[in-house]
Amino acid sequence: MNTNNVSPLGNVSREDRELLIGQRGATIWFTGISASGKSTIAIALEKALHVRGVHSYRLDGDNLRLGINNNLGYSQEHRKENVRRAGEISKIVCDAGLVALSSFISPFRQDRESVRKSHEESGITFVEVFVDCSTEEAERRDPKGLYKRARGNEIKNFTGIDHPYEPPESPDIHLKSDVMSLEQEVEKLLEFITLNNILGEESKLQS
Amino acid sequence: MNTNNVSPLGNVSREDRELLIGQRGATIWFTGISASGKSTIAIALEKALHVRGVHSYRLDGDNLRLGINNNLGYSQEHRKENVRRAGEISKIVCDAGLVALSSFISPFRQDRESVRKSHEESGITFVEVFVDCSTEEAERRDPKGLYKRARGNEIKNFTGIDHPYEPPESPDIHLKSDVMSLEQEVEKLLEFITLNNILGEESKLQS
Repeated sequence: MNTNNVSPLGNVSREDRELLIGQRGATIWFTGISASGKSTIAIALEKALHVRGVHSYRLDGDNLRLGINNNLGYSQEHRKENVRRAGEISKIVCDAGLVALSSFISPFRQDRESVRKSHEESGITFVEVFVDCSTEEAERRDPKGLYKRARGNEIKNFTGIDHPYEPPESPDIHLKSDVMSLEQEVEKLLEFITLNNILGEESKLQS
Repeated sequence: MNTNNVSPLGNVSREDRELLIGQRGATIWFTGISASGKSTIAIALEKALHVRGVHSYRLDGDNLRLGINNNLGYSQEHRKENVRRAGEISKIVCDAGLVALSSFISPFRQDRESVRKSHEESGITFVEVFVDCSTEEAERRDPKGLYKRARGNEIKNFTGIDHPYEPPESPDIHLKSDVMSLEQEVEKLLEFITLNNILGEESKLQS
């Protein structure tokens, strides 16, 4: 390790942390309806990065709602706040030098754009991945039985049933999860990250 | 890198991330009144860890209040929520495999205990550092002019003036910042972390 990277007077900067860890921080943001496959894809990418020596950290709605967002419900205002906090935590993960793999339905274009803008203002790369799956297919999968409960009116404001989902107009990556295999999806993600040098030239992905 | 550490079927676990980064996650939590020196000490420790190859990330009130906590004020309820969120983010930083250096006035014993408990429930080490400074000395320093504004009634509910601070009864580390030098404080912290093997045997601090 080259300790000359740290100025003896200044604070440790994001660049210092990135040099130490050997990669640049970046957020890969997965948006899509419930059961579209966001978390499944994020988990597979997390593993693919890990075995290549890249440090990432996965954030998702289920997870954050158990901790920092346990005081939020599903009203329009709370969904907005859920996405805002998720974006801020993603930035913290990146600032620490890691890759944030963030899966959130994040149904509103404006909220996603706020998260992108807030990343860009901090000089952090934000990659929007649209996990595109028809409602029919998502409803057929329904691993948590949520669509069934929404159809039975047990859950209100369910995205895709009685609450809107605004698809990205120009996502960085478009994955059609009802026709692509998980392997194809991960390959497409790794290819994008590598070709665009998202994690920096020092990253193990580039070597 | 030994890819055998990752089971081909399971998700990437905290242990997997810790193996990859070569250290265990832990939170070092600095509590004390305004201008007691919390952030100054955290910054010095951050640098000391960094030059030794240890990955840490610093969180403080000023910082979080610009981002994730920008919708919180200084009422009792909001201070409680500020500390709760700070604790949850510290846990995320640790879960990612890093050392969280968290400086928050965190005036109430009960709130700090909740943060400790929540760490322990997740199997994460929590080290409470009491940055102990007399109000007289802190008020003499007053780098942000906050005590002056509190005395002039421009700021209400100011800890140490018209809002209570409950000192830790048995902190893990007690730093008397009005008599110790910064070098002595950092030395004491490094000694504690090393002797108690807080970052694990693989950590660069132990080798």
